[in-house]
Amino acid sequence: MALPAVLCAQERKRARDLGIVPGVIQPGRLNSITDVAGVKVGHVTLVKGDSIRTGVTAILPHDGNIFQEKVPAAVYVGNGFGKLAGSTQVNELGNLETPVVLTNTLSVPVAMNALVGYTLQRQGNENVRSVNALVGETNDGYLNDIRGRHVTEEDVLQAIRRADTARVAEGNTGAGTGTICFGFKGGIGTSSRKLPASLGGYTVGVLVQTNFGGTLQINGAPVGKTLGWFDYSDRLLNSADGSCMIVVATDAPLDHRNLMRLAKRAMLGLGKTGGIASNGSGDYVIAFSTAYRIPYAGNSAVMNVPLLQNDAVSPLFIAVIEAAEEAILNSLFTAETTTGHKGRKIEALPLDKVLPILKKHNSIQ
Amino acid sequence: MALPAVLCAQERKRARDLGIVPGVIQPGRLNSITDVAGVKVGHVTLVKGDSIRTGVTAILPHDGNIFQEKVPAAVYVGNGFGKLAGSTQVNELGNLETPVVLTNTLSVPVAMNALVGYTLQRQGNENVRSVNALVGETNDGYLNDIRGRHVTEEDVLQAIRRADTARVAEGNTGAGTGTICFGFKGGIGTSSRKLPASLGGYTVGVLVQTNFGGTLQINGAPVGKTLGWFDYSDRLLNSADGSCMIVVATDAPLDHRNLMRLAKRAMLGLGKTGGIASNGSGDYVIAFSTAYRIPYAGNSAVMNVPLLQNDAVSPLFIAVIEAAEEAILNSLFTAETTTGHKGRKIEALPLDKVLPILKKHNSIQ
Amino acid sequence: MALPAVLCAQERKRARDLGIVPGVIQPGRLNSITDVAGVKVGHVTLVKGDSIRTGVTAILPHDGNIFQEKVPAAVYVGNGFGKLAGSTQVNELGNLETPVVLTNTLSVPVAMNALVGYTLQRQGNENVRSVNALVGETNDGYLNDIRGRHVTEEDVLQAIRRADTARVAEGNTGAGTGTICFGFKGGIGTSSRKLPASLGGYTVGVLVQTNFGGTLQINGAPVGKTLGWFDYSDRLLNSADGSCMIVVATDAPLDHRNLMRLAKRAMLGLGKTGGIASNGSGDYVIAFSTAYRIPYAGNSAVMNVPLLQNDAVSPLFIAVIEAAEEAILNSLFTAETTTGHKGRKIEALPLDKVLPILKKHNSIQ
Amino acid sequence: MALPAVLCAQERKRARDLGIVPGVIQPGRLNSITDVAGVKVGHVTLVKGDSIRTGVTAILPHDGNIFQEKVPAAVYVGNGFGKLAGSTQVNELGNLETPVVLTNTLSVPVAMNALVGYTLQRQGNENVRSVNALVGETNDGYLNDIRGRHVTEEDVLQAIRRADTARVAEGNTGAGTGTICFGFKGGIGTSSRKLPASLGGYTVGVLVQTNFGGTLQINGAPVGKTLGWFDYSDRLLNSADGSCMIVVATDAPLDHRNLMRLAKRAMLGLGKTGGIASNGSGDYVIAFSTAYRIPYAGNSAVMNVPLLQNDAVSPLFIAVIEAAEEAILNSLFTAETTTGHKGRKIEALPLDKVLPILKKHNSIQ
Repeated sequence: MALPAVLCAQERKRARDLGIVPGVIQPGRLNSITDVAGVKVGHVTLVKGDSIRTGVTAILPHDGNIFQEKVPAAVYVGNGFGKLAGSTQVNELGNLETPVVLTNTLSVPVAMNALVGYTLQRQGNENVRSVNALVGETNDGYLNDIRGRHVTEEDVLQAIRRADTARVAEGNTGAGTGTICFGFKGGIGTSSRKLPASLGGYTVGVLVQTNFGGTLQINGAPVGKTLGWFDYSDRLLNSADGSCMIVVATDAPLDHRNLMRLAKRAMLGLGKTGGIASNGSGDYVIAFSTAYRIPYAGNSAVMNVPLLQNDAVSPLFIAVIEAAEEAILNSLFTAETTTGHKGRKIEALPLDKVLPILKKHNSIQ
Repeated sequence: MALPAVLCAQERKRARDLGIVPGVIQPGRLNSITDVAGVKVGHVTLVKGDSIRTGVTAILPHDGNIFQEKVPAAVYVGNGFGKLAGSTQVNELGNLETPVVLTNTLSVPVAMNALVGYTLQRQGNENVRSVNALVGETNDGYLNDIRGRHVTEEDVLQAIRRADTARVAEGNTGAGTGTICFGFKGGIGTSSRKLPASLGGYTVGVLVQTNFGGTLQINGAPVGKTLGWFDYSDRLLNSADGSCMIVVATDAPLDHRNLMRLAKRAMLGLGKTGGIASNGSGDYVIAFSTAYRIPYAGNSAVMNVPLLQNDAVSPLFIAVIEAAEEAILNSLFTAETTTGHKGRKIEALPLDKVLPILKKHNSIQ
Repeated sequence: MALPAVLCAQERKRARDLGIVPGVIQPGRLNSITDVAGVKVGHVTLVKGDSIRTGVTAILPHDGNIFQEKVPAAVYVGNGFGKLAGSTQVNELGNLETPVVLTNTLSVPVAMNALVGYTLQRQGNENVRSVNALVGETNDGYLNDIRGRHVTEEDVLQAIRRADTARVAEGNTGAGTGTICFGFKGGIGTSSRKLPASLGGYTVGVLVQTNFGGTLQINGAPVGKTLGWFDYSDRLLNSADGSCMIVVATDAPLDHRNLMRLAKRAMLGLGKTGGIASNGSGDYVIAFSTAYRIPYAGNSAVMNVPLLQNDAVSPLFIAVIEAAEEAILNSLFTAETTTGHKGRKIEALPLDKVLPILKKHNSIQ
Repeated sequence: MALPAVLCAQERKRARDLGIVPGVIQPGRLNSITDVAGVKVGHVTLVKGDSIRTGVTAILPHDGNIFQEKVPAAVYVGNGFGKLAGSTQVNELGNLETPVVLTNTLSVPVAMNALVGYTLQRQGNENVRSVNALVGETNDGYLNDIRGRHVTEEDVLQAIRRADTARVAEGNTGAGTGTICFGFKGGIGTSSRKLPASLGGYTVGVLVQTNFGGTLQINGAPVGKTLGWFDYSDRLLNSADGSCMIVVATDAPLDHRNLMRLAKRAMLGLGKTGGIASNGSGDYVIAFSTAYRIPYAGNSAVMNVPLLQNDAVSPLFIAVIEAAEEAILNSLFTAETTTGHKGRKIEALPLDKVLPILKKHNSIQ
């Protein structure tokens, strides 16, 4: 079953390829988080038998030893019904020291353990005794036998090994394999924005794992409302609350404080798709910058850090809102109908119904 | 000049009266924050000579002695470039003990002083020696001679005295007299949502003072993008960053923690109008509940408090997002073209240009 | 080797048994976190061969199904250099749904996994697909082969099974087996305070896992200063930064907000022992109340909750400060000299040197 | 009456002059916040008739135009029962743009207004339309006719004008004129620590306005316990809850994040004097660095900032804890017996009773 799903995912088009163009800023070359130079993404997709529909997605800020060369980072809690691990250290010290790994809710411990092992084993880390693993999750327990905890440490390590700087596979892939978004099949999505040179020329990339609800809006068009699918309608009332993980990368020179502000704005992009950050949604935004690195054991107690002035961050806020919105849409447009645990079936976003709504509202070019 | 402005404001229609219906939940009777039983709002509008375009808006959670009968409350900081006073005590103690007052940035101290005096003088408060005044603001310094600090304590007291439970005047009124939103004249707006009885039947009301930027979106239609007016376009690049104050009232029995969560969601409504919470925007959400009161000097150390379960708050989240979005739109639709300080002029939202865009995008009925 | 360590631990006396009486409030009957009715504690101590000196300590708020009957809770981050898991959900929802487990830094993932399994397997939880495991840690990597990750899921489950309401074993036991405090052997410590009936008669219990540095002060006496052992002296300059986990239980009817305030005060108790919450210290306080339970699936959307008024919490603040201070002292007084990984040896608090200092400063009765 | 009070204050000795030497680090030259180069402090003391016992204290980070050359800063909320104004902007933008002013609770609005006027009038600020005034307070309403709101804007401006870099007057002076601490007369206190060159050679200075309760401990000696004066004893049960304002200055190159961590540690110093951060205490710590300045209107969007590595901040934590403890003690030792509003009298710390306790506990050299 894995094969057709993957094949199909390739056949489905991204939002922009269909003429859906949210916002006013241009995307980067790949319209992907990997437009931020050096950022790598890798997936392991687990589709086995009738019931396993899950996976792992790993995001690396650079190609080096992340523990030895940390990057500035922040974790914003949009809504904390979630099991994301590692946030308190990132926010205290202002940096990230492992790859970011996304998986399902009950596999967070296994993913953490894999990241700990990965870091301990890495050359140069022979004396490391403390590792802050950053692992996010959403709950794919409707389509996936989540109680079976089928993700292994090897799956996590494999996702890290596979990570590259190419365009990111989207939809039913990696940590998005079994997720549901607005009642349709969700998954992994990505997008980016590149500011004009006059505003610094920085790139902001976003990757999402979508598994949340609300009243779907696509580039302004009221899709959920038109279809009668919204959070408290009969149709969706009993749907799982889900969650959304949002990873933001940028090459703009930001410190923890301004990365936190950037992360906070990503939630506005989620809001524009109709998300409500419901009570049971674990919505977290992990933001990091590749503009400078923080040595684990520096030669000097004082480092000189390039920092963007507060006044100059607003264009980055626009960028992250737009990229988050488009990344979520990409996850929906690329995801495929999936049958899983207990024979449950979740339909892909039905283009035959959705595209006419978009046309009616001139939300598509 | 004050008179025509007020008259004109009455002539302009609210968003819903024009057929703009955001969201899926029905508004309350007045579609106003005063749909929450007992909540009162009063304005003082200062339009004098060529340069004074400012005012005061007061929101009271109930008709009693608020210091003696506090209400549960929370203040959420969307973006803290702002001079709002009183947030730390509200968030530490979980309650509100004065009316909420909105005014301009440089008049916060005067408004605080007025609230202190108001509380000290109130019958029953003869021994009070500590008052936490809650005052929000936005910067109307483009149209108003803000450096002149023209608001007086009497203006603040007058706004409180005038407060009533009727429908709230919107547009160029009270604290919204001189504000600018998305490059157009902003002001005061309000809206409400009433949940179906099956979801508790609670009402959520929102009042906004709009003075912020971004790329205007009206019920999904890309107005700012179509007009070429957006935050970093030549047109708006040098506009003031502005701010948005959002006041949320509800009769749902929430404590500080869930009121904070409710407040946080109001920012998603701001995002849906195209707001970006820019660096220089002071975006704060003040939320309170009228469901129970907290006595200043209780007879018993333990009080029994009715609290909505976490699971039941999600519909309120939808309600506040929708009401915040519509309140912002109401501020734009009801505000009038204004000329002020140094002969500067800000146009009202131009219906001749905007309505066709809304029609093109089927965002209007 | 485990046996003698345990035996010795019994021979060492607690602070109060030596005449050290910090504070002004009386302890509960056992001077232990288990003085809070229903609270249970269990340890698994791992002392194997030359290098394994670690363990697990589990704290249960009550005897029932914690997932189905959650308790109000808060996690305060004193200093976030730490890998504690589960804090964001506790703070969002205001409750705790698993036992609290303490272990070593690199075993957090295993302990989380065990808690997930424990919850999934528990009768009545057959449909549970989401579990927020709360796991704290300190780094015992000086005495323990921490990179070997020797704690197993079975160890964690065993600690939970062993939990009882008796007096808690202290010193080199459970999660405190390999820890170091102020350069001496640290470990597990506990203490409690019972308020007079006039102040509500509530009990506050504290359990600590001590692994931190600073300049030791015992009931006011400057032990670290006198001995020349302090954080930046030659003696301790290169010591591990360590951490301190503090668990606070109370039967006072507090909600999340006031539990957070209670948790925050526990850090003042740590400060009174000379702790500084150094950069590399993971200092977290987990506080919960046993006064009421929050049903996972309630019959009613609104629950009536007894809540202590803000005015009445100050005596609880005194209680938690005193109990935290005494619990830390108990961990030091009961811990035994330990030899571990790579032949490293950490001495127990040397009574022959310390008691004279306490006498000189009249800090002992 | 003002004159004798000041004279008397000079006659009372500071803690260290009496042989009380808390901690292990040496103070700076003046043992004052003004040991941090460039920092200036000014007081206005209002002692008039029978009932006015209040004042203003201003702290300036440097001699220039603070609005145009902001300094990195953070405000930590120890306990938010307080009316401190300006915290949200400091924490959002990470900087301070006015002098810090301390006064009484009900005079915060007047002090804010004075700071706004001060900034608007300052040469070079002709176009400024937004000012974030930072004003802290404690409640001197027992000795002072606080409801009379006797502080004027001119008093605030005068305190700023008087500010100099000399040793700071302590005790019944400025904002400490009418405060009470542990049941004795409190007031202004200051202290500093200078790190050894091997740890960077940085200076940390602290200034406090003490008005809080608890169980007084002086350099470890249990003064409050011995005297039977503690928070819930009959003696102090009805005392005002009070508050403590703590201002921390350093020349170490810290950003907002590490200044916040530094500020947080100051509360441990308060804890070591027996403070409990009671429910009604407004305990705030304002920290700033003089190591670099942040231009209001920079020429470049990117600035290069020197930042101390996380690893190097721990010695600063020790320094701030010690300086906060000693500053609080100085406020007590230098304050004078005061009679005020309604004939109420608060005794100075009674040396005849306290010094024997310190000697008994060897807490004095």
